[in-house]
Amino acid sequence: MLKYNIENPSKTIENKIIKKINQKTKPPGSLGKLEEIAHQVSLIQQTTEPTINNPAILVFSSDHGIAKEGVSPFPQEVTKQMVLNFAGEGAAINVFAKQHGLAVSIIDAGVIGEFPEEYKSKILNYKMAEGTQNFLEEPAMTKIQCEEAIKKGAEITHQCYEKGCNLIGFGEMGIANTSSSALLMHFLTGEPLDICVGKGTGLDDKGVLKKKQILAKAAANYTGKDDGFSVLQQFGGFEHAMMVGGFLKAAENKMTVMVDGFNVTAAFLTAYQIQPEIKDYCLFAHMSDEKGHRKMLEYLKAKPLLQLGMRLGEGTGAAVAFPLVQSAVNFLNQMTSFEDAGVSKSD
Amino acid sequence: MLKYNIENPSKTIENKIIKKINQKTKPPGSLGKLEEIAHQVSLIQQTTEPTINNPAILVFSSDHGIAKEGVSPFPQEVTKQMVLNFAGEGAAINVFAKQHGLAVSIIDAGVIGEFPEEYKSKILNYKMAEGTQNFLEEPAMTKIQCEEAIKKGAEITHQCYEKGCNLIGFGEMGIANTSSSALLMHFLTGEPLDICVGKGTGLDDKGVLKKKQILAKAAANYTGKDDGFSVLQQFGGFEHAMMVGGFLKAAENKMTVMVDGFNVTAAFLTAYQIQPEIKDYCLFAHMSDEKGHRKMLEYLKAKPLLQLGMRLGEGTGAAVAFPLVQSAVNFLNQMTSFEDAGVSKSD
Repeated sequence: MLKYNIENPSKTIENKIIKKINQKTKPPGSLGKLEEIAHQVSLIQQTTEPTINNPAILVFSSDHGIAKEGVSPFPQEVTKQMVLNFAGEGAAINVFAKQHGLAVSIIDAGVIGEFPEEYKSKILNYKMAEGTQNFLEEPAMTKIQCEEAIKKGAEITHQCYEKGCNLIGFGEMGIANTSSSALLMHFLTGEPLDICVGKGTGLDDKGVLKKKQILAKAAANYTGKDDGFSVLQQFGGFEHAMMVGGFLKAAENKMTVMVDGFNVTAAFLTAYQIQPEIKDYCLFAHMSDEKGHRKMLEYLKAKPLLQLGMRLGEGTGAAVAFPLVQSAVNFLNQMTSFEDAGVSKSD
Repeated sequence: MLKYNIENPSKTIENKIIKKINQKTKPPGSLGKLEEIAHQVSLIQQTTEPTINNPAILVFSSDHGIAKEGVSPFPQEVTKQMVLNFAGEGAAINVFAKQHGLAVSIIDAGVIGEFPEEYKSKILNYKMAEGTQNFLEEPAMTKIQCEEAIKKGAEITHQCYEKGCNLIGFGEMGIANTSSSALLMHFLTGEPLDICVGKGTGLDDKGVLKKKQILAKAAANYTGKDDGFSVLQQFGGFEHAMMVGGFLKAAENKMTVMVDGFNVTAAFLTAYQIQPEIKDYCLFAHMSDEKGHRKMLEYLKAKPLLQLGMRLGEGTGAAVAFPLVQSAVNFLNQMTSFEDAGVSKSD
């Protein structure tokens, strides 16, 4: 597949950034993680005066062939219903994005069914197909579909960039997509399926057992390669593939990316396997209550900003964590220095 | 001392609140801690449509006699300098409060020295004295001072309430005040001093050892009672005493209170010992990096909203956590229900 031109941010400016943070009127290090965020965003933007401009959330939605095996407690039509709910601005992601001034784009990456005419203007039509194939029987996507979905995700992200957006978060909706994510995690981190498979939207113990058995069979059937692209094509959803393209393009464009929960981090893992440089551009918004997420973050040596027991998806973790990133940028730009404020330093 | 009229919120409305949360278009429980906050704030306000009105942060500042023993790496005059920095709106609390639309009041509870004329309108003058006495030698406050400071804190909080504020956070500034807080914690929780004493604004290991030795001596010298009021009078700062009054009055007024870090939680512990009903009105904003705070929160069985390694004080933890409380209220008021959105429920 296409390689993106992703550079690690230059460290030339790092001493200036550290100096500026330490001159603020507070004991050194006392803003904790906010100082780390300020440092990282400054490096990404190569300035000691970073700004967040036109922040956006892209919610990629798609259906999954594996849903017919009964791996989710929700019926498959909920994907489409929830996309309509996003378009009607009644879902959690709409509420949190509105609170924080985040633009939300709803992307149909491969939802089954057609949307009513009056909603079409609110849902970006990037439909790859009426859902993926059932990966228990065949690859979820063809190679061409997978490449195309990655390109589309990159294209949508680049459109945001061209409109002046420099901070982006990805969200997702797709009944059964934690099954895809569990297998991406399994093949990309080497963790046993037992660690990777969780309750998703709320399976009971019996349901989790059934889900594990189905995914174990799917994993055993697979004889392909274990690189990011190959496992994505076999097990991923169109929303995962588009997010992979989104991560790669955002990093190429030197945008700050807020990584949401289990499904988004599965897409991150995939993109990270392809081009690990993306990690310098990413902040991990929260630790999901979905079982595998903790291990995913440990694998990535990523410290999440929030741990609120959330497990909703849609990009809600990224949206809710957003004000922390704004706080980090704000303290760096707005707080006085010891010198300016005439405050004595410590011994 | 005066008892406040604090009632545990009635649970009559609880089933309605739970039902409303569970009808929102999301898997049950999937908003984690945000659902708990929505539940608690609804109980406090006795409505399924809670609102946050005129949220405010009160920053109580005062000096401490114990500072002359060298328990802080910062010189004592930093208390006054930082109060001027608050008044000039250049400190971290100003930046975060501005970001979230929180009104900030700066209270001189007992800062040494007089403020320049041009700042006086921005600093509420509730000065009890030029700092407390050195509790190594005598009680930090007289009984009358301690009662008076509690009353003043209640009065200032009530003024906010009368202006329509229904959510409040307390912050503090006072060189050496983690020494007071460590002793309040020690006597009120029974934890050994080793657990209660930390680096404060940034002591090195040698400094922490010296601080421990001084506080151990002060603890050994004390032969008074170990109830909240008595230990507050002996070891507390005027800012602690005013926050105690603030907690009690806020709960009496059925306001939601955001509890900040180590020093504010020490004041909370004191008020809690006096009237434990206050806890139903409180959200614990963050876990400070100051050593004893984790144990304080464990003692209170309180789960903090944030763990960001912050240890600045000023109410910054409460300010930074505030948007999570707003998110909780917003999802409850603004998200669609399954029925309204035509979304199918799980099996």
